[in-house]
Amino acid sequence: MKQAIVARTDIGMGQGKLAAQVAHASLSAYEDADSRTRKAWKGSGQKKVVLKGSGESELFELADRAESERLPHAIIRDAGHTQLDSGTVTTLAVGPGEDEVVDRVTGHLSLF
Amino acid sequence: MKQAIVARTDIGMGQGKLAAQVAHASLSAYEDADSRTRKAWKGSGQKKVVLKGSGESELFELADRAESERLPHAIIRDAGHTQLDSGTVTTLAVGPGEDEVVDRVTGHLSLF
Repeated sequence: MKQAIVARTDIGMGQGKLAAQVAHASLSAYEDADSRTRKAWKGSGQKKVVLKGSGESELFELADRAESERLPHAIIRDAGHTQLDSGTVTTLAVGPGEDEVVDRVTGHLSLF
Repeated sequence: MKQAIVARTDIGMGQGKLAAQVAHASLSAYEDADSRTRKAWKGSGQKKVVLKGSGESELFELADRAESERLPHAIIRDAGHTQLDSGTVTTLAVGPGEDEVVDRVTGHLSLF
C-alpha cells in the first residue's frame, strides 16, 4: 500500500513550505480513509511518495480520477500567511490505497 | 496551536525525501496526541512549521524535552529504500500543542 502526494512545481515553494504542504495533504487524505485502510497502511510502514504536478488544473484532474477510483484524497490550499497568496492550491494526496490503484491515478508522474 | 517538525540538515535529503519524512513524522506525532488535542489542532487549521535540526543527537535531545513537556512527539527513521542508510534518523515532530509549550522545545530553531 502507499500514498502519493503531488506537489505543484510552478509556484516556487521553498523546501520547508513544500514539506509542510505535503504533510498537510498526507494527513488530510489519511483522515479521509476508512479505519481498515488506515491500519493496513500503517502496518505496512506508511509508504509515501512525493511527485511533481505541473499546476492547479492537473491537481484537480488527478483528484477527479482518485474520486472515480474511490481512493481517499485531499486537495490543500495554503492559508497564505507566508510565501503564497491565500487560497493557492499547493498539493494533492491520493491514498492510502493499494499500489496498483494509486498508480492508476499518479503512476505517470515523476518523483519530486 | 501548532506542530513543529524538525528535519536534519546534515544528511543531504532531496526535497521530495525531506517532504515525505516530514509528513511521516507529522502523522506519527498526531497519532500520539489525544483526541481532544487532535480536534483542537485540526479546528484551528493544523498549523505546521518545518525547522532545521543539526543532527541526530539534537533530535533526541529535543524529543526528551518534548517528553518532559508532555507533548506528543515522534522520531522517524528512514526505511532506507533510497538515498539514506536504513535506520537513519531523519525527522522529529513535536505537537500538536499550545504554541508557547511547543516553543519551549523548538522555539530556538530556524525555519527550514
